[in-house]
Amino acid sequence: METYNFSAGPAVLPKEVLEKAKSEFRNYQGTGMSVMEISHRSGLFEDILNKAIEDLRDLLEIPENYKVLFLQGGASTQFAMVPLNLFVNKEADFIITGNWSKKAYTEASKFGQANVVADSSKENFTCIPDCSDLDLSGQSDYIHFCANNTIYGTKFNTLPDAQGKDLVVDASSCLLSEPIDVSDFGLIYASAQKNLGPAGVTVVIIREDLLERESAFPIPTMLSYQTHAKKNSAYNTPPTYAIYIMGLVFQWLKDLGGLKEMKKINKEKAQILYDYIGQSELFTSQVRKEDRSLMNIPFLTGNEDVDKTFIKEAEDHGLYSLKGHRSVGGMRASLYNAMPLEGVQALVNFMDQFERK
Amino acid sequence: METYNFSAGPAVLPKEVLEKAKSEFRNYQGTGMSVMEISHRSGLFEDILNKAIEDLRDLLEIPENYKVLFLQGGASTQFAMVPLNLFVNKEADFIITGNWSKKAYTEASKFGQANVVADSSKENFTCIPDCSDLDLSGQSDYIHFCANNTIYGTKFNTLPDAQGKDLVVDASSCLLSEPIDVSDFGLIYASAQKNLGPAGVTVVIIREDLLERESAFPIPTMLSYQTHAKKNSAYNTPPTYAIYIMGLVFQWLKDLGGLKEMKKINKEKAQILYDYIGQSELFTSQVRKEDRSLMNIPFLTGNEDVDKTFIKEAEDHGLYSLKGHRSVGGMRASLYNAMPLEGVQALVNFMDQFERK
Repeated sequence: METYNFSAGPAVLPKEVLEKAKSEFRNYQGTGMSVMEISHRSGLFEDILNKAIEDLRDLLEIPENYKVLFLQGGASTQFAMVPLNLFVNKEADFIITGNWSKKAYTEASKFGQANVVADSSKENFTCIPDCSDLDLSGQSDYIHFCANNTIYGTKFNTLPDAQGKDLVVDASSCLLSEPIDVSDFGLIYASAQKNLGPAGVTVVIIREDLLERESAFPIPTMLSYQTHAKKNSAYNTPPTYAIYIMGLVFQWLKDLGGLKEMKKINKEKAQILYDYIGQSELFTSQVRKEDRSLMNIPFLTGNEDVDKTFIKEAEDHGLYSLKGHRSVGGMRASLYNAMPLEGVQALVNFMDQFERK
Repeated sequence: METYNFSAGPAVLPKEVLEKAKSEFRNYQGTGMSVMEISHRSGLFEDILNKAIEDLRDLLEIPENYKVLFLQGGASTQFAMVPLNLFVNKEADFIITGNWSKKAYTEASKFGQANVVADSSKENFTCIPDCSDLDLSGQSDYIHFCANNTIYGTKFNTLPDAQGKDLVVDASSCLLSEPIDVSDFGLIYASAQKNLGPAGVTVVIIREDLLERESAFPIPTMLSYQTHAKKNSAYNTPPTYAIYIMGLVFQWLKDLGGLKEMKKINKEKAQILYDYIGQSELFTSQVRKEDRSLMNIPFLTGNEDVDKTFIKEAEDHGLYSLKGHRSVGGMRASLYNAMPLEGVQALVNFMDQFERK
């Protein structure tokens, strides 16, 4: 039976990437060594690292005045690194659209003044708040938001009006799902385990002038962007295997035609599921139409027992990890880049079958 | 040609571990998924995580009042986490035996008073200083040292006399190479990429009462030991694949007979190389005999050109990564757990052949 993995992350990886990695698992480029066994100071690994950086730059058309860093610790570590490195006035503005943006806000509050300038908590995070005329603080060092909300299935389809300030974005669950204009942002970060690769590596794209900010704190060396920027992400031993797999994913995306093509496919996949839900009498989506995510699609029946039965029976049909996040319940299908069209079709077929029954 | 990888880290992994990982690379336990694709909140991954923790507890006979944590960021992140979490009086004593212990000392100085209580820099780090009667500060919160010095090839064969204070040890390049008494330490940390697994995961073993220390700082959530202890190392997405491979290494060590057996093998391997160097007229070791490491064995000819030729010709014979660290030059053979006896024999045979020529 063909199985499909709708996990919100760690998530499905492209078949072609896994096949390639398996084929050279014990013998990378004829060395008799696994990539895991190769010194991070060797030419072999330096090539892997530099190719991954270059391919990411190509895919996102990253301007020259931005640095690409591969770090550890996930987005949760970025919640601290951003204020520790970017605070000058020790103040920042936050847009709250779910658990993760709230965590980023709470963490920044440890180190300075964090202002909430927009918030969709009253709407149970089922929509993106209007960010066209934010009441920003004159003193704030940046504006932070989360581009795609993995738990609630919402997405910023229009960027907040930054009024000349730097936008810092948590793009963990949407980076590389479609083209973006990197120059709209001061700093972009994303943990890998959704669209980029396996857990254990985090991508940071930072405008170079932000590396020069005189921090208001004594920063742990490993939490300083400068440390990693100066040493091309190899200040200490980087997570070599995770970077290697991520590099294979970047290559896969390039082979596929890049992010424009990827967006087309992602829209098509999401449309199939949204269309089905739209006409269904059993399943509903709580999310405001214009704010719907292409990556994470929560839905429910309104009856917890029926939801449970659905999730269980779906597993019996090879459709895994459809349980919604504990804070919202119901179901959630994550349709990241690596989820094939056939997976969405299989899901919709099963939903239809379940509904008829 | 059989090849052997003497890299100081990331380093050789056991063949059996890589074979097992390859065999289930695309289909873990019949799920059709790679371990990389499995949610960290799934029962499947929880089992991997808990088994790895239990096996490590077994191998090291870790007392019940110690917690095992799997973190990210390498030993370099521990250089900051230790003082951030353990400083109460903001003072600690450091034993300097090489680059890494010096880095730990420098990092701690950012956050408080770091005292050097022993130092072998005058001896070019070719020996371990006498630590039987250290002049400790009455105010110091702990004593920090590095058990095995990867670069210089020295090792503490007797623990420093802690005079009732807590010992904190960087055991990155020797943990699991032989039995230790965990209760001798307040905190043990080790990056995985030497004896434990692939780069990207760091083991911390901490006595529970140290988790209760009222830190002198606002600690980034991800740098707090408490955060990870409370959530069984899954506060956020852990580096799942690195933990899985590390778990396979732990199982391999148990199958092999545990750490007593491992030590016997490691002593045998190191003895072969030390014996050869001892009688050689070309190669010498700079390290004081009683302080020699079983894991990292630097040696040289005294002539840089000859060293270079040796390293190059060794590669042609399938003996990789024998170049010494740039700060000491010459050669270095790392004989971690996963280096088979045949690898050391092949190295010594080649050294003999080279010397005759």
